[in-house]
Amino acid sequence: MNNKMREAFQKIDGGLFSSVSKADVGDAYDNMQKDGVRLMAWADPFYPDSSIPEHVKKATIKVIENGFSSHYTVPIGNMVLKQEISKKLLKYNGIKADPKRNILITPGSDSGLFYAMLPFVQNGDEIMIVDPSYPNNFQNTDILGGVIVRVPVYEENNFQLNINEFKKRLTDKTKMVVLTNPNNPTTTVYRRECLEQLRDFIVENDLILVVDQAFEMPVFDDIEMVTVAALEGMWERTLTVFSLSKGMGLSGYRVGYIVADDKIMDKLYAATVSVLGATNTAAQIGCIEAMKDDSFLEEYFKVHLERRDMVYNLLKDVPGIVVHKSESGFLSWINVSKLGSSQEIVDYLIKEAKVAVNIGEPYGLQGEGYIRIVHGVLGSTDDLRGCIEDIKKALTKLAYSKGYKGV
Amino acid sequence: MNNKMREAFQKIDGGLFSSVSKADVGDAYDNMQKDGVRLMAWADPFYPDSSIPEHVKKATIKVIENGFSSHYTVPIGNMVLKQEISKKLLKYNGIKADPKRNILITPGSDSGLFYAMLPFVQNGDEIMIVDPSYPNNFQNTDILGGVIVRVPVYEENNFQLNINEFKKRLTDKTKMVVLTNPNNPTTTVYRRECLEQLRDFIVENDLILVVDQAFEMPVFDDIEMVTVAALEGMWERTLTVFSLSKGMGLSGYRVGYIVADDKIMDKLYAATVSVLGATNTAAQIGCIEAMKDDSFLEEYFKVHLERRDMVYNLLKDVPGIVVHKSESGFLSWINVSKLGSSQEIVDYLIKEAKVAVNIGEPYGLQGEGYIRIVHGVLGSTDDLRGCIEDIKKALTKLAYSKGYKGV
Repeated sequence: MNNKMREAFQKIDGGLFSSVSKADVGDAYDNMQKDGVRLMAWADPFYPDSSIPEHVKKATIKVIENGFSSHYTVPIGNMVLKQEISKKLLKYNGIKADPKRNILITPGSDSGLFYAMLPFVQNGDEIMIVDPSYPNNFQNTDILGGVIVRVPVYEENNFQLNINEFKKRLTDKTKMVVLTNPNNPTTTVYRRECLEQLRDFIVENDLILVVDQAFEMPVFDDIEMVTVAALEGMWERTLTVFSLSKGMGLSGYRVGYIVADDKIMDKLYAATVSVLGATNTAAQIGCIEAMKDDSFLEEYFKVHLERRDMVYNLLKDVPGIVVHKSESGFLSWINVSKLGSSQEIVDYLIKEAKVAVNIGEPYGLQGEGYIRIVHGVLGSTDDLRGCIEDIKKALTKLAYSKGYKGV
Repeated sequence: MNNKMREAFQKIDGGLFSSVSKADVGDAYDNMQKDGVRLMAWADPFYPDSSIPEHVKKATIKVIENGFSSHYTVPIGNMVLKQEISKKLLKYNGIKADPKRNILITPGSDSGLFYAMLPFVQNGDEIMIVDPSYPNNFQNTDILGGVIVRVPVYEENNFQLNINEFKKRLTDKTKMVVLTNPNNPTTTVYRRECLEQLRDFIVENDLILVVDQAFEMPVFDDIEMVTVAALEGMWERTLTVFSLSKGMGLSGYRVGYIVADDKIMDKLYAATVSVLGATNTAAQIGCIEAMKDDSFLEEYFKVHLERRDMVYNLLKDVPGIVVHKSESGFLSWINVSKLGSSQEIVDYLIKEAKVAVNIGEPYGLQGEGYIRIVHGVLGSTDDLRGCIEDIKKALTKLAYSKGYKGV
């Protein structure tokens, strides 16, 4: 059947027939965990420890108890949830969104990102994607028949956008820019001046922008988090994808949302049932309470900041690697290229430090030589510290063996 | 932005800018319900009354209580759930499916159906779709750039497949057949001899088959429910989409699954994160228990059978309409063409009988002049009877006014 598939599907493979077992297929992770390897490769806050605030638990349980959660919500989403989201959008993102016309609830932000791109990407359209960034940006483009145009960001520039890198790749086939802001894996929060330049570029060339803001909270060091859709001229040409998985620690709930102008949203509403179906009913009810009273975030964000500093302070002096202070979220993106390839270092850390972190390549061509550590996992910061110390020890040992000495 | 979209998205509209308000957008349903109109237009068993069995409730609540449900499952699905599904597939569908290689959990069967079609449908591929059938079959084809080839089934033939209708539409661009079995809206269970003819047609012409079996339970009157993927020669070219929403009454849980040969599944696994993301964690755990102990189905199916008979007996003698005994599920598909257009009858029933049922057109060209009644709604069969009696009274009145007299 292979030759009957879209080109993207002809090329990809899921791990069933490859020698390398993929993380999310088969027994790879199960086996690792049996071996005592700690998982720091899923962007799943506090995994495997609980992170459902009590009032969210209560609301979710109530709607299962009373049985209402056996039924569909309207496919475009629970209206009360959309009203709460609307308030948050105004307060946090500077966007005035009508819950009835500008918001679509999605079963997580992965399918939300796919659905935001689906109406536009086709037949050789050129899609500009920051490299490195979230792997789905690339795969979605590929699946939909678009052409991936990689726009590199560099460590020397703190992974910030350089508008010239966009300009020099513009052709008459350029249709869309896809941005992950803050970026995953680099944690970079794109600065207002960069985004305003990008805005000008997008408006001048009549492009569409899709922004994935799954990691918009927390942002550290008083860096301004700019929602591009709120910049003048961008509302009518931007689809913004949000998630309750990352900031709120509700990954397993699988609730995300798309925000867009009503002319675009009209089209998304029209095909929601076909592409997405409705989102889980109980989870939406739980999310209403999480948004109504989000005071638990203060504690979460304090923990993430503490960990960010801890990881930086523990690893910054390891010889042969480059660590930056993360600007947001709960990830660290580390240049290990002097010590080995991305895959070699990940394999080594599994064996030597008993931690599984991410290889850099899925995030783009610029990912080679980097690893991503999810330091948001585990409920206890002390346990997390143990993992990071094990990583430090292992990398230091490797560095010494390669002739790199401490500072 | 409209002119930048795929053709299908340029054409569709979601109700925000149309004069007719669509059911799933805006306030249409809310307003109807405020007016005391009873909803019989969503295929949502026992809506709005609870239908979560106690042991399923308990399991779902437990995993929210203990907090584990805040985390992602592996995107391709909870392994224990897949093991339970595998047992069911062997017992009920005659399919031997390896939980590790042949099953993918999806956030409901709508996105499952879309994902089953996505790898194949593109660029003018001709997709044969039974008309009438589930609206998503048509819209998915359209969105993905395929050409809809309608294969009509007729009331005179009890809505069964006629292989000649397929044969005469075959071209060298035909790539896929999409089947809803049992059919929604007609409730038709396709007979073994029809399906074997279809199998021969598909194999001979090297086509792909996507079958949506969301309504596979219950089937009445000892009609054999044949899973086409289990017919010789079909396994390697069939993607079957299943749901726990319909038979098990767990619509709001949003859990479905795709079953396919591992060469196809390898491709689906490879892009699951991008297109679907993971499925809600707590819902998957609840579904494990529903599948482990499905004894509650006996009572559900008894209720559906009782209602099927009740609807038939109440409506069969209404002059001017044609009612068939439903073969499966909890729907009735009624020919009202002598009394008015599908839309006229639905509007009339909202006003006169205070019930909202479905117009026939979304199900295909053959849907004009039909209405779909979801008689699976409401926990109480007595309440349901009240709705059906109101429909009977209203339709009888209309028939008399148009000169049709009782038998």
